[in-house]
Amino acid sequence: MEDMILLSHGSGGESTRKLIEEEILKYFGNELLNELYDSSIFETSGRLALTTDSFVISPIFFNGGDIGKLSIYGTINDLSVMGAKPLYLSVGFIIEEGLTLREFREILKSMKLASEECGVKIITGDTKVVEKGKGDKIFINTSGLGIIEEGMDWRGREIKEQDVVIINGGIGEHGLCIMLQRLGIKTDAEVKSDLAPLNSLTLPLLKISSGIKFMRDPTRGGVAGVLNEIAQKYNVEIEVNEESLPIKSWVKSASEILGIDPLYSANEGKVVIIADKKEEEKIMNFLKAHPLGKDAKVIGEVKGKGRRVYLRTRIGTRRILDPLKRDLLPRIC
Amino acid sequence: MEDMILLSHGSGGESTRKLIEEEILKYFGNELLNELYDSSIFETSGRLALTTDSFVISPIFFNGGDIGKLSIYGTINDLSVMGAKPLYLSVGFIIEEGLTLREFREILKSMKLASEECGVKIITGDTKVVEKGKGDKIFINTSGLGIIEEGMDWRGREIKEQDVVIINGGIGEHGLCIMLQRLGIKTDAEVKSDLAPLNSLTLPLLKISSGIKFMRDPTRGGVAGVLNEIAQKYNVEIEVNEESLPIKSWVKSASEILGIDPLYSANEGKVVIIADKKEEEKIMNFLKAHPLGKDAKVIGEVKGKGRRVYLRTRIGTRRILDPLKRDLLPRIC
Repeated sequence: MEDMILLSHGSGGESTRKLIEEEILKYFGNELLNELYDSSIFETSGRLALTTDSFVISPIFFNGGDIGKLSIYGTINDLSVMGAKPLYLSVGFIIEEGLTLREFREILKSMKLASEECGVKIITGDTKVVEKGKGDKIFINTSGLGIIEEGMDWRGREIKEQDVVIINGGIGEHGLCIMLQRLGIKTDAEVKSDLAPLNSLTLPLLKISSGIKFMRDPTRGGVAGVLNEIAQKYNVEIEVNEESLPIKSWVKSASEILGIDPLYSANEGKVVIIADKKEEEKIMNFLKAHPLGKDAKVIGEVKGKGRRVYLRTRIGTRRILDPLKRDLLPRIC
Repeated sequence: MEDMILLSHGSGGESTRKLIEEEILKYFGNELLNELYDSSIFETSGRLALTTDSFVISPIFFNGGDIGKLSIYGTINDLSVMGAKPLYLSVGFIIEEGLTLREFREILKSMKLASEECGVKIITGDTKVVEKGKGDKIFINTSGLGIIEEGMDWRGREIKEQDVVIINGGIGEHGLCIMLQRLGIKTDAEVKSDLAPLNSLTLPLLKISSGIKFMRDPTRGGVAGVLNEIAQKYNVEIEVNEESLPIKSWVKSASEILGIDPLYSANEGKVVIIADKKEEEKIMNFLKAHPLGKDAKVIGEVKGKGRRVYLRTRIGTRRILDPLKRDLLPRIC
């Protein structure tokens, strides 16, 4: 029988120690984590950002990534859109008894590579095991601590009429890819999640432009969700131009088959940016030259006060773009 | 039908917003959390401590506490034993569809009170919902950030022969209480978890004594587990005196019925302290005067080099006290 995670791996005894020292530290090991103190200790100062996310995606391996990579990039992105340079991560595993050691190692390896790519260290962690049928293979929580350098904090910049809404590329890919896979629909190689770490994009962008007024990665709830949050929070009306939305052709097809609007489908490598109109060209030039921004588009504009989002359709009509009302896509992240 | 958590509450749409704004913020709300940015931003500087823990305890309500209280105190304790004053917490919920809103509110309330008691703020969070049968009511991850003031960092103080091993009170209570409840055994009012936040004990103690060389809360794996970790990490032999172990009489009875040694049973309000022999009296006087230390005992001593823990039994023999080898107590924290 294949080696697998057992309840004893979560008991706090010898098996737990072995799992931590012989598996987890083998991949994540660094001078802070290796100490295995109850907390990890480091020195820093300034403006810090803290974020947390639990990942419960199903399936745990998908086209374009896996739950491990997602758990690193997802938290990196929550820091990156706030202008914070990611420094440290914590990782909490909740494993269902019976996950194979092979699968667990694949996830650990994937997390190791993803964290190295982002220049971030995993410095503290926790592993729990639950009985078969009380979890679903593996859930991963990551919390992230980052530092916001001078001039990188966009909070407090006023969003106003004529500000532009920009996205760095095609929308809806992650959610639709996961749904297709979950339904067992055979797909082409191009059908994959857009999963990517945004720190290499948002941080240099904030350095070159002080006209960025808001950034958020449109995960659950999609682009429509984020735009509604902005409209509500800042009391502005936003109009999205349907014609300008970057949507890959497979996303269009999947969207028609599944009846899921790409505007409500999750993304994992996209950022919605609100920026000063005057900075549009500079920002778009930067994005177009970046590997994660080559399909960037200006997709809409701020129309003044209000708390609603409108879609200007291809045929010229204008309709309200509500936030998601149903349980459209459970467990896509 | 009673109101309950549905998959739509985790979809990132309107129901998620309502759950966050009308339930979670009602209890946890503060100026940092209320912003609902992707990360929470604050200023600090110095020596910081980061820790994380996922809580998967079953049952979620138990004698002496609930999963909410546990998720706050547990992380507070991981900071407190490192000499870190808890500042901020993140909270990640993984809820199984069908948890009643009444239960969820009770947990939120409990977390609110616990965090207020510890003077810590919940500043960022995440909520996921999984299908019925893919989780177990609720799992909670908390990560904690604390600050270590000058003179509070015990790392690097050398553990050597004659150092004393101290515990602040009765051992094994949490684990045995949970096991009794899980088995449906009717118990007296005195049978309860020792769940308590240790910051009010460890932080003042570190201030008055520079002879503290190590502290850890003996949760999973129990006191025997922590002592073995110390023996391994610092290459010392430790001898525990069985006669001196503080064990409540109900713990003794439960231990006999269940066949679980209190030395391997989890604690949630205890700290194992290694201290300089010369400071023993000062430390014991402090502990005895503290509500969480009145049953404190010197339970053993460091015997020199080695990597083993021995138990000096009541009848004078000496046996090896190994770390836990089996899956003794799944899901007790």
